[in-house]
Amino acid sequence: MTQTTVAYAKRTLTTTQPRCLNIDNINPHIRAAKYAVRGELAVKAEEYRQRLADGDKSLPFDSVIFANIGNPQQLDQKPITFFRQVLSLVENPLLLENPEALKNSFGYKQDVIDRAQTLLANVQSVGAYSHSQGAPGIRKSVAKFIEERDGFAADPQDLFLTAGASSGVSTLLNVICNDSNAGVLVPIPQYPLYTATLALLNAQCVPYLLEEEKSWGTNVNAITQSIKEAKAAGTNVRAVVVINPGNPTGASLTADDIKKVIDVAAEEKLVVMADEVYQTNVFEGEFVSFKKRLRQLQKEQPGKYDAVELVSFHSTSKGMVGECGHRGGFFELVGFDPQVQEQIYKLVSIGLCPPVVAQCLLETMVNPPRAGDPSFELYEKEYNGIRDGLQKRAFALYDAFQRMEGVECQKPQGAMYLFPTINLPNKAIEAAQAEGRPADEFYCLKMLDATGVCAVPGSGFGQKEGTFHFRTTFLAPGTDWVERIVKFHSEFMNQYR
Amino acid sequence: MTQTTVAYAKRTLTTTQPRCLNIDNINPHIRAAKYAVRGELAVKAEEYRQRLADGDKSLPFDSVIFANIGNPQQLDQKPITFFRQVLSLVENPLLLENPEALKNSFGYKQDVIDRAQTLLANVQSVGAYSHSQGAPGIRKSVAKFIEERDGFAADPQDLFLTAGASSGVSTLLNVICNDSNAGVLVPIPQYPLYTATLALLNAQCVPYLLEEEKSWGTNVNAITQSIKEAKAAGTNVRAVVVINPGNPTGASLTADDIKKVIDVAAEEKLVVMADEVYQTNVFEGEFVSFKKRLRQLQKEQPGKYDAVELVSFHSTSKGMVGECGHRGGFFELVGFDPQVQEQIYKLVSIGLCPPVVAQCLLETMVNPPRAGDPSFELYEKEYNGIRDGLQKRAFALYDAFQRMEGVECQKPQGAMYLFPTINLPNKAIEAAQAEGRPADEFYCLKMLDATGVCAVPGSGFGQKEGTFHFRTTFLAPGTDWVERIVKFHSEFMNQYR
Repeated sequence: MTQTTVAYAKRTLTTTQPRCLNIDNINPHIRAAKYAVRGELAVKAEEYRQRLADGDKSLPFDSVIFANIGNPQQLDQKPITFFRQVLSLVENPLLLENPEALKNSFGYKQDVIDRAQTLLANVQSVGAYSHSQGAPGIRKSVAKFIEERDGFAADPQDLFLTAGASSGVSTLLNVICNDSNAGVLVPIPQYPLYTATLALLNAQCVPYLLEEEKSWGTNVNAITQSIKEAKAAGTNVRAVVVINPGNPTGASLTADDIKKVIDVAAEEKLVVMADEVYQTNVFEGEFVSFKKRLRQLQKEQPGKYDAVELVSFHSTSKGMVGECGHRGGFFELVGFDPQVQEQIYKLVSIGLCPPVVAQCLLETMVNPPRAGDPSFELYEKEYNGIRDGLQKRAFALYDAFQRMEGVECQKPQGAMYLFPTINLPNKAIEAAQAEGRPADEFYCLKMLDATGVCAVPGSGFGQKEGTFHFRTTFLAPGTDWVERIVKFHSEFMNQYR
Repeated sequence: MTQTTVAYAKRTLTTTQPRCLNIDNINPHIRAAKYAVRGELAVKAEEYRQRLADGDKSLPFDSVIFANIGNPQQLDQKPITFFRQVLSLVENPLLLENPEALKNSFGYKQDVIDRAQTLLANVQSVGAYSHSQGAPGIRKSVAKFIEERDGFAADPQDLFLTAGASSGVSTLLNVICNDSNAGVLVPIPQYPLYTATLALLNAQCVPYLLEEEKSWGTNVNAITQSIKEAKAAGTNVRAVVVINPGNPTGASLTADDIKKVIDVAAEEKLVVMADEVYQTNVFEGEFVSFKKRLRQLQKEQPGKYDAVELVSFHSTSKGMVGECGHRGGFFELVGFDPQVQEQIYKLVSIGLCPPVVAQCLLETMVNPPRAGDPSFELYEKEYNGIRDGLQKRAFALYDAFQRMEGVECQKPQGAMYLFPTINLPNKAIEAAQAEGRPADEFYCLKMLDATGVCAVPGSGFGQKEGTFHFRTTFLAPGTDWVERIVKFHSEFMNQYR
């Protein structure tokens, strides 16, 4: 019944004889990599969950809330019916032999059946390897989606379907980091995939601070300043990562913010890595893709932006889809040298292909039922229900943070997270130091112990020195868990004030 | 309708302005990596397929046979019904609300329904991230499978579910290769995943030759000789890869062969990497796992083998399952230091989790219907039908090779491939040299041009200097394509003799 959060339990050696591999002689870059999302707190939360499941009544809470990870279907989010109906048919095409029973007994509509047949024609079997970039027919659908989103052409040849966005990010960082001097600009705070992958590649993370006071906006001066310092230190800065909407910050960038980043990239010859997996999780304003903005600029000022290299990542895991477990996604390359693109193809071909069922899911995500289609009404209802639920929970959590002493939180704009500042009293910081922990980790552990709510300390994402934060998703249903946090915080402050 | 074989098509630059990334400044290890299975021949084969599909009548064949890759469901292999019925239900659990219709209209049996419910209880939703090592309940099933296979205990904590065996191999090589001096013993010929991944990691491939004349057996003297030479050259030899049954060779190792490898590993403190993805594709004798043999030795001679570190890989892509597109698999760690195992957990957690549908598929593979279960009869019939078909085709191909002048082929023992020697006439070798190609590549290109059959030249896997081979799967249905090869070969020999 469980998943996600059972980290690796401690074991003991069965023999003391020396082995080939020990902690001091494995690849040191793996040891150096940090990934807090599934770390100590997650392990402890899972232990609590297990104790509750085993009937332990000694804990001060009756459920564990996994607010540490954006995993909607682990909480109460239901999958969208159209997607899963189609996937059930591509998994078992024998079902298609009796369309009447599908319709009468299970409510499948004709567009579900048609879609499954189209997808099967594209992939032959979900059990066959596809093209290493993903099935050509599915890439065509993705290209069409991008064209409709941006109003600019997209070429299926520039699309690489992936096993989630994470594997795409890893592929690109692998290509970009040509030696230990290569540097990549990473926003702070960031999703730790970036720092972890750079550590694995033994390349340089060049941090640039986001502006909390401006809704966690991207400050181009901070980027140029970081570039200057990195260059002075001998780092070859090659790329800039932007996460929009932001993780963990929830920020949503304006068209103007995006232009400023592209300007720096054009000037400094940086590859832009746009992590746009939360592109449909936007509460305020409208999502603008880096690709669209780049094409606009190329049109407006011919020549100036022609050589800008952009890679944009998207995923089936987030948005209203929330199909994390399927491991689907894609990236689009814009302006890359074809010879480099060939090398990227070779690199992904060594891993053969992304999961084919996930490719089919991606196709339904980018090409959902349209108005007039038999499945449209239910699809729209489910989609909007999830969207509205997320927005409502985001603001309920935000409101709770407003009520909490010493907690400051930016208004929710997008993504699945809030990342409040906690102004911790000195006594709390000293108590944390006594335990040898960062103060935000100390706070999150106390919160977990008191409430069963598992959040991730800001130190797992990076934060301005001397500040403390935590990241929480707003995916968990109900408001009880939010009130638990409020109560805990008040008691914590009373204890350490 | 296509997939698999469209490699990256040539493109031209849209601007000559310099970019950040070009072929000379990307990660040089990517450029150095070679992966022939999806290379030039595969691209050409796909072009031919497209021309035939477009009605081109000018080619000397009427179909392209993709014998270059072990992708059963791209050819005619049907998925096993039980697996796919279960997967259709985990994809759309709403189907479970009407079990009668499932049974009456679609022939689903009660054990299919029960299994889907058990799996859903394990993973909650196939759309939720699982534990990074794979859902605990599914790992329990895998452990049980290993225990039944080997007669020795297996611990779910030592199992890591993966996206195909490839990603597991990549994980382990990443951990083992601690610097550019680290070496891994790789059989020659080998599946090029190993050399490609070592190239990406900038580590040393330490080749050891298999003995063609002894059915491609593993010669321990060749291994110890290679170790000696590598050590003399300053390489830190850390692991030995064994592919059993062999790819591309089709060899199947005896218990005694396996002991010899384990002896060397114990003596030289090497990690044994046992690629056992073809463990059910064995025509002669019985598959013996490295784990079983190691446990036997540990029992027989207490102490001597206690510190041997073994990792064994398995997959849902091969065997009678052939579900390549699902990207499922696992590896088992034996004798690893728990601290190292924790680092492996952290590494895989950065990629979040393997595809959850593939985890469910893996569960059905390791825990198929048993005698007496409602789905057993059909399962057994399908399973045996695939097994017998593969064996029949393997021997038909082998018989054809026996009839071909200058071709020598070892008797099929296992896996999905034959890897014959072709004794090429000097005139052919010279003609190849004139084109700047290895002679076996020249031969395979001529074969493709004349017959539409796509095989992979031995140079893509490595071979003893001065010898030439090609690898062909025996997955394609019918015997017509085999006769095309026979006719081509005779004409080729007449031309170049």
